[in-house]
Amino acid sequence: MTQYRLTPLAQSLPATVPFVGPEAQERQLDRVFDARLGANENVFGPSPRAIAAMADTGHWMYGDPESFDLRAALAAHHGADMGNIVVGEGIDGLLGYMVRLFVEKGDAIVTSDGAYPTFNYHVAGFGGTLHKVPYKDDHENPEALFAKAAEVDAKLVYLANPDNPMGTWHTGAALARAMNLLPQGTLLILDEAYVDTAPEGTALPLDWSDPRVVRMRTFSKAYGMAGARVGYAIGAPELITAFHKVRNHFGMNRAGQEGALEALADTVWHRDVVAKIDAARQRIAEIARQNGLAPLPSAANFVAIDCGADGAFAKRVLDGLITRGIFVRMPFVAPQNRCIRVSCGTPENLDAFAAALPEALRDAKRG
Amino acid sequence: MTQYRLTPLAQSLPATVPFVGPEAQERQLDRVFDARLGANENVFGPSPRAIAAMADTGHWMYGDPESFDLRAALAAHHGADMGNIVVGEGIDGLLGYMVRLFVEKGDAIVTSDGAYPTFNYHVAGFGGTLHKVPYKDDHENPEALFAKAAEVDAKLVYLANPDNPMGTWHTGAALARAMNLLPQGTLLILDEAYVDTAPEGTALPLDWSDPRVVRMRTFSKAYGMAGARVGYAIGAPELITAFHKVRNHFGMNRAGQEGALEALADTVWHRDVVAKIDAARQRIAEIARQNGLAPLPSAANFVAIDCGADGAFAKRVLDGLITRGIFVRMPFVAPQNRCIRVSCGTPENLDAFAAALPEALRDAKRG
Repeated sequence: MTQYRLTPLAQSLPATVPFVGPEAQERQLDRVFDARLGANENVFGPSPRAIAAMADTGHWMYGDPESFDLRAALAAHHGADMGNIVVGEGIDGLLGYMVRLFVEKGDAIVTSDGAYPTFNYHVAGFGGTLHKVPYKDDHENPEALFAKAAEVDAKLVYLANPDNPMGTWHTGAALARAMNLLPQGTLLILDEAYVDTAPEGTALPLDWSDPRVVRMRTFSKAYGMAGARVGYAIGAPELITAFHKVRNHFGMNRAGQEGALEALADTVWHRDVVAKIDAARQRIAEIARQNGLAPLPSAANFVAIDCGADGAFAKRVLDGLITRGIFVRMPFVAPQNRCIRVSCGTPENLDAFAAALPEALRDAKRG
Repeated sequence: MTQYRLTPLAQSLPATVPFVGPEAQERQLDRVFDARLGANENVFGPSPRAIAAMADTGHWMYGDPESFDLRAALAAHHGADMGNIVVGEGIDGLLGYMVRLFVEKGDAIVTSDGAYPTFNYHVAGFGGTLHKVPYKDDHENPEALFAKAAEVDAKLVYLANPDNPMGTWHTGAALARAMNLLPQGTLLILDEAYVDTAPEGTALPLDWSDPRVVRMRTFSKAYGMAGARVGYAIGAPELITAFHKVRNHFGMNRAGQEGALEALADTVWHRDVVAKIDAARQRIAEIARQNGLAPLPSAANFVAIDCGADGAFAKRVLDGLITRGIFVRMPFVAPQNRCIRVSCGTPENLDAFAAALPEALRDAKRG
């Protein structure tokens, strides 16, 4: 075996994937899922205008490395300046750049225990030391996160609002108040991937140039373009400029840039999809209750369902659903892992889920 | 001004872009280019089968993080194992991962003076020390590169074959012989982005699992899918596995994965495009000669044209072309910067180039 001269940090990293994809599970099960409800995708899809724009793209041309037109449209949409915005290869890619800019070996970073594993993957990948704070009543706990950040002198603190995997949320006003506890020298990464399906007032009501926070947004959720990989970060221009030091300038696919422009413009489709997601959330909750389970309130495009016992039990429910062709996921960490997490689907998807859940529960109770 | 707590390395990096995109130049000039011949894109575009596949993609779904189907097809195409192949967000993205895996502050890396700037951008971005070797007669010089690697104990040496920006090439057999000089402990990154338009025998004729080399390939050039951002690396399984430690597992756009599958399968289209590229190379060379300039032989999808004087003169020719609506680029470093670099275009593109070049030359000679 050749000994490659990886950096000591790279040597120490496992070759893991934060999530196993549904395709890998399908290959393993040798069947196609009837309902794909595990990755918080948006089964209602993007605006037809976005689909048409992506189909008509001149694929032979590199995308504009500045994503100028998309940033201009986003700036107008948000009432921000173009200098407040950087577009990247999904929030995952942007989180990687953020961590790379800020974190070297031993730097302290704070997140919730059970929050987004891909953020943790990036922190480990750059040698940071992750400090975790427990959820509080299935909500992320901003006050505890910021207190921990002060305690360990964290460079970054990660907080998703609405939260994934629980779907719970805080009002933007409450978050803004909590930010008074954010220590100087700690930057808040506020992941607002799911804010488009949340009640009015969930977005943080602070100036886009507030230097204490960088906000992450995406076209993967409410806009239905997960496959296109278009995310963006909004923050103070000085911070946004730092991305240009390290980002893959020609990394954006051109179809994604052009599709996102149209998706943003088609406000009628967007409102309709958000309404469909809301209806699906209610249906999932109803199915849960019909089976004697407790759905958590959700502002996201999924619902966490409390299976009423421990993580081992929820895992059996999950396995029972998967073997019945229903792709779902579940939180990784106790006590949240007493739940399964079901993404909003079409009425047909949810019929399939409703049919499979009683059987999965019956098998899970048998142990 | 807030002082963000970037790492010392990130603090030290400039917020530069390796290349300014043509769209930025168009915005500055307030006109659209008549011929887009500067980024070595493939104006003949992808196979209609690839275009259809990209249009039909379920954009709402994340791409398969394993790119399983595409890797299986590539393995069959190359006579390799799937474990030899990792798919990534273009060669640019894969080069970034390679550098991240191998390079920390002060590590020695070798490349040619005037070779691919994006590789240099990544090396600087991870704190590596770049050692450069001059071109020899407008060719990259493998023997000198490998001797320099031995001298500085380089972890990585970068070599493009065919070369960009000159278009020149070595036979695979000659490269394989030169590799006897590659020091133990140095890994060769062989960028074969342009190998699909090169003469038979240009690809390195070594086993895909040879531990001394990792090869970079792309769908951006002969396959005409630059906008889709699909590249791949081929190497020993142990090396390929290391990518999984750091890559953005869900970074691939789904349309790109599915389009690449079809592009690879449509061998008729591929052969036809390669023939068109060859015809365009000949036409560019002819236009150059008609203007008293010397085209360099090229195995790539562009031709470097020696403007017969220094870099300042070539820059004036380039500026004259750009103001006349012809987007071209030029090498950055002397003596290669006596050339301009013209990508293969349609007959109409090259008519426009042929019309603009005499005027640009006339103005350049006036100084």
